[in-house]
Amino acid sequence: MAKFGFHKSAPLLALLTDFGERDSYVGTMKGVIHSICEEVRIVDLTHKVKNQDVTGAAFVLGSSYKYFPDKTIFVCVVDPGVGGKRDILCMEADRRIFLAPDNGLLSILQAEGKAGTIRTVQNEDLWLTDISTTFHGRDIFAPVAAHLANGIDLHSIGPKRSRIRNLKLPRPVKTAGGTLKGEIIYVDQFGNLITNVGAATLQTNLRGSRENQTISVAGSTIKGISRNYSEVEEGELVALIGSSGYLEIAANKGSAAEKLGCGRGAELTLKG
Amino acid sequence: MAKFGFHKSAPLLALLTDFGERDSYVGTMKGVIHSICEEVRIVDLTHKVKNQDVTGAAFVLGSSYKYFPDKTIFVCVVDPGVGGKRDILCMEADRRIFLAPDNGLLSILQAEGKAGTIRTVQNEDLWLTDISTTFHGRDIFAPVAAHLANGIDLHSIGPKRSRIRNLKLPRPVKTAGGTLKGEIIYVDQFGNLITNVGAATLQTNLRGSRENQTISVAGSTIKGISRNYSEVEEGELVALIGSSGYLEIAANKGSAAEKLGCGRGAELTLKG
Amino acid sequence: MAKFGFHKSAPLLALLTDFGERDSYVGTMKGVIHSICEEVRIVDLTHKVKNQDVTGAAFVLGSSYKYFPDKTIFVCVVDPGVGGKRDILCMEADRRIFLAPDNGLLSILQAEGKAGTIRTVQNEDLWLTDISTTFHGRDIFAPVAAHLANGIDLHSIGPKRSRIRNLKLPRPVKTAGGTLKGEIIYVDQFGNLITNVGAATLQTNLRGSRENQTISVAGSTIKGISRNYSEVEEGELVALIGSSGYLEIAANKGSAAEKLGCGRGAELTLKG
Repeated sequence: MAKFGFHKSAPLLALLTDFGERDSYVGTMKGVIHSICEEVRIVDLTHKVKNQDVTGAAFVLGSSYKYFPDKTIFVCVVDPGVGGKRDILCMEADRRIFLAPDNGLLSILQAEGKAGTIRTVQNEDLWLTDISTTFHGRDIFAPVAAHLANGIDLHSIGPKRSRIRNLKLPRPVKTAGGTLKGEIIYVDQFGNLITNVGAATLQTNLRGSRENQTISVAGSTIKGISRNYSEVEEGELVALIGSSGYLEIAANKGSAAEKLGCGRGAELTLKG
Repeated sequence: MAKFGFHKSAPLLALLTDFGERDSYVGTMKGVIHSICEEVRIVDLTHKVKNQDVTGAAFVLGSSYKYFPDKTIFVCVVDPGVGGKRDILCMEADRRIFLAPDNGLLSILQAEGKAGTIRTVQNEDLWLTDISTTFHGRDIFAPVAAHLANGIDLHSIGPKRSRIRNLKLPRPVKTAGGTLKGEIIYVDQFGNLITNVGAATLQTNLRGSRENQTISVAGSTIKGISRNYSEVEEGELVALIGSSGYLEIAANKGSAAEKLGCGRGAELTLKG
Repeated sequence: MAKFGFHKSAPLLALLTDFGERDSYVGTMKGVIHSICEEVRIVDLTHKVKNQDVTGAAFVLGSSYKYFPDKTIFVCVVDPGVGGKRDILCMEADRRIFLAPDNGLLSILQAEGKAGTIRTVQNEDLWLTDISTTFHGRDIFAPVAAHLANGIDLHSIGPKRSRIRNLKLPRPVKTAGGTLKGEIIYVDQFGNLITNVGAATLQTNLRGSRENQTISVAGSTIKGISRNYSEVEEGELVALIGSSGYLEIAANKGSAAEKLGCGRGAELTLKG
């Protein structure tokens, strides 16, 4: 086998795109990656981010990257501006490397104070020879990621920079009356409604015990914050701290999204 | 690379969940697995079991596990009771290892007389440090599977047990008049209707030749059991022994499910 | 580990099927492959070709195989004739190996003059012992591919042949008046409409500059051929040379298929 670069073990790439799985876009990216770096391991984070949904991609990345080993290279291609003037970023953060368009996707890492050196992907020697205007995942992201997996020096990617675009993510707001107002930021495939109210915010802002909280969302009211789904009857709504560390509205063995008829952007209020 | 444990070759994990591919749940499990066991190979059996459909998962597992190499570790997370009181099982069966919630998923292996030692997954030293109540796939299943892939002793997983929950799977019934009554147990994405009538049952129970069988399902009648799809005209219904070893109703180059407007749970009768 | 055959590095298999991801068909094929060849790397090209859509599969293969390394083994199972009289082919082409049913899928490689030696897959010693009539992906394609990955000699697969079935793919036509008539041949998941008008055809056939072309499709007219999506306003239609090298109709940050209400087979005309 080829020699490993700065990885003493086989390098790991994680792919996050909105390419879906019907076309061969993702497969083609993997072909390019394997052509350049033979011993790489590739994990699909997901390719079913809603088309061009940068905010959804940012949530998915933010709630999962910590579970990957140090030195994992994340390749994030949700890129409605492909072929236009947007830059491509290479960010070191939290002992891992992230490639993504400069459209806000990586701003969550900066907001959390995790971002290290950021570079603009600019060294064309690392790209494919013919660059299309519509598929930089194949022509730029994949080969750059594979060269990183081979252990090239980060400074050969392109020049350093400090400013990147920010996503405006909604934050929970505390009203004068002591009510906390939040918002649904992600709906998973089980119909669980994930809110922007983190466990720490909840702890800090609310008086009284978990049992005494009242959550109102889409015309329904949920009493108390539970530990797990099965604390309520089948089909009933339940509020709990989900696996991503945020307050989540679910239905035991059912879909809260269907039951409530609401989705991303819907507001909720908590009174304690 | 890390030393291999009881595997002399790279260990193989097969994942079976109802997590779908839209969220990053499966990708996150793989991140955890690669963090603990570097040289593992991971195969997706499927992640599109219908949400919380334990019976469908059991069928998928039962019809595919035999095609995997000895020592494959199957990680089955269809787990509507997550966070509640259900146990997690580790079963040795047919020279492979199976992890699944104690909800009946593995009872098919026991029913077939394949089950060896069964243990309760209980050694928290093998789990992630923070255990959520809603995503044991990430916090318990993935790390335990990765430690197994690293070759830890099975007895360090948890204590032995003998009893597990059983799925009540419908079995074909022979009536006094000699008619065999069966049921559709799985519909695949081609619209093929897979029944609970196994090839051996068919052989034992029916008099007369394959050509003389009459199959009735959803108001339609099929004459004879064919060898392959193309024995009938395009679009026509055909009955044959499918690749999983069960009687299957299909439509040549079409969807029997659409043509008949029926699905799982639909009854069929065979007269020979 | 087992010795590598003609591969000095870990062999690479790419899978292309219409099996979808809901059932365990693809996973089972991978189980068989890993049982025979341990060090193989497997890439999913896609499994979401429309059921039994040989033409769609041929397009997907043709636009992606070049991005894979030399010696990649492509396993293409879109096989409406499974179990019938159709042969299975093993074609060497462009320094890679392709397995597919003889239903036209590989004829694009022959049409491009890329095809080398073609063989009929006939040596049953390389297949699984029990051959179903409905799942040759598992019983024939997977084990033959795995043996190829192990480095067996190609002539042990089966006898040489020269003739294979051809797909009739629509070609663009130039009318007496100088208009070029083309057709939509593929719609991707973003709703981009990919036509059969290649970049070279466009170059050769049209007088005048890119800016002066008029493209008519589904009752709409697009003026000029752009370089990238963002040359038009959000939601507006745009014509450009897509990443597969064909003229493509898209909508900037939207779906052209939805906007135009048309799909594969729809005609378009270009006047220059």
